[in-house]
Amino acid sequence: METRKHVEVCFTPGDYAYYKDEFEIVVVIDVLRATSAICAAFDNGVKAIIPVPTVEEAKAYKEKGYLAGAERKGQIVEGFDFGNSPFSYMKEEFRGQEIVLSTTNGTKSIDVSKDAEIVVIGSFLNLQALSEWLAVQEKNVLCLCSGWQDKFNLEDTICAGAISDYLLNTGNFTSDEDSSIAAKYLYLSAKDNYFGYLKSSSHRRRLKNLNLNEDIKYCLTPNQTSVIPILKNGKLVNMVLENAL
Amino acid sequence: METRKHVEVCFTPGDYAYYKDEFEIVVVIDVLRATSAICAAFDNGVKAIIPVPTVEEAKAYKEKGYLAGAERKGQIVEGFDFGNSPFSYMKEEFRGQEIVLSTTNGTKSIDVSKDAEIVVIGSFLNLQALSEWLAVQEKNVLCLCSGWQDKFNLEDTICAGAISDYLLNTGNFTSDEDSSIAAKYLYLSAKDNYFGYLKSSSHRRRLKNLNLNEDIKYCLTPNQTSVIPILKNGKLVNMVLENAL
Repeated sequence: METRKHVEVCFTPGDYAYYKDEFEIVVVIDVLRATSAICAAFDNGVKAIIPVPTVEEAKAYKEKGYLAGAERKGQIVEGFDFGNSPFSYMKEEFRGQEIVLSTTNGTKSIDVSKDAEIVVIGSFLNLQALSEWLAVQEKNVLCLCSGWQDKFNLEDTICAGAISDYLLNTGNFTSDEDSSIAAKYLYLSAKDNYFGYLKSSSHRRRLKNLNLNEDIKYCLTPNQTSVIPILKNGKLVNMVLENAL
Repeated sequence: METRKHVEVCFTPGDYAYYKDEFEIVVVIDVLRATSAICAAFDNGVKAIIPVPTVEEAKAYKEKGYLAGAERKGQIVEGFDFGNSPFSYMKEEFRGQEIVLSTTNGTKSIDVSKDAEIVVIGSFLNLQALSEWLAVQEKNVLCLCSGWQDKFNLEDTICAGAISDYLLNTGNFTSDEDSSIAAKYLYLSAKDNYFGYLKSSSHRRRLKNLNLNEDIKYCLTPNQTSVIPILKNGKLVNMVLENAL
């Protein structure tokens, strides 16, 4: 009898419909930069993040007095004070606050997966802590990459491959999908030098042109925090604090 | 000035809409087994193949007296005499004939790309001949993988990576998309042993269960033919013979 759980990788939010049925846990990944920024925010003591798919929704919250950020195509949307740079979320005034965020790819992934039993946020920043937590849940795990404008991207896939590799190495998980096998192969060839491996990736080139090299370095540096953001009633909260309530 | 042409890789027919605009040539790839069977058919002297997306259309042609094949989920559809095994197309009675074919994934890719300027058929079987031809066209090339039921598959991606790698090595092509970079990485790690590399792939496992190991071996053996099937007025024909008309 097969008692192992599945860990699979879905490359884009658009592919989610082909994968979603079997998985109790969805890990949303948008390494450059939404899910890295979300991890950085909770590491800095933010109380909650309300992810919204559209800029209009973010604006509506802003008008109600919320701290609200919006990013499209790598840049802060006009009329907003911050986008998805992790460094934006390290300010003292953000601690204890609820923040609204809309991004090109990451908040779209959260939106398509929001009806899953459990939705958590993954990035290189919380790789080890998240993987260890997933390993003991005894649930099927889908790593949902956010991609770039509905297309595959390398950095999310490699992060998903890293999570899969960890879970597969416990012996309690199996991968069936070719996308998962490819993600693992890509991770294994990238793991000794993420920055070098991704230097030709389209998204990194795009952000580099926007002078965001510091952001990229930060987002590709594993295990800077042990926070695990989790979606509860439409808001992302810090799992540890939430469980303590 | 950038005069190099693009060679990019699209993982599934469903993603085609995100890629299609810039490319004059689309290479449709369905290694296991539609595009391998199509190459084998032309190598055996078939006159034309009429690809149809639905079983119903294939049936309608059969009732009109055409040789018609249909495959779904790896098996010959009831009421048909053949599906997409390359060996089916090596019969003497197929020579000089027009054949109708509907398959799970491959004919779907042909259908979504049929409005491109040029649609050709790629597989490991005609890898070298096709790559050499693409290299001298001075056109942008999109390798369209057929995937498996709308999801990514490894064997098509590796074949696409092989074509891309050849074209990139001419110095006259460039790849921008992360999907193309990933396909090349996967090809480079697979190229010394396709059969071993793909042993864990989902589709190979599926076909192995159907006792199709001989088909798989044949489909993964490069450069068995120099035919290049090309779509003309809704029919696939042998490019060399067509040009000679």
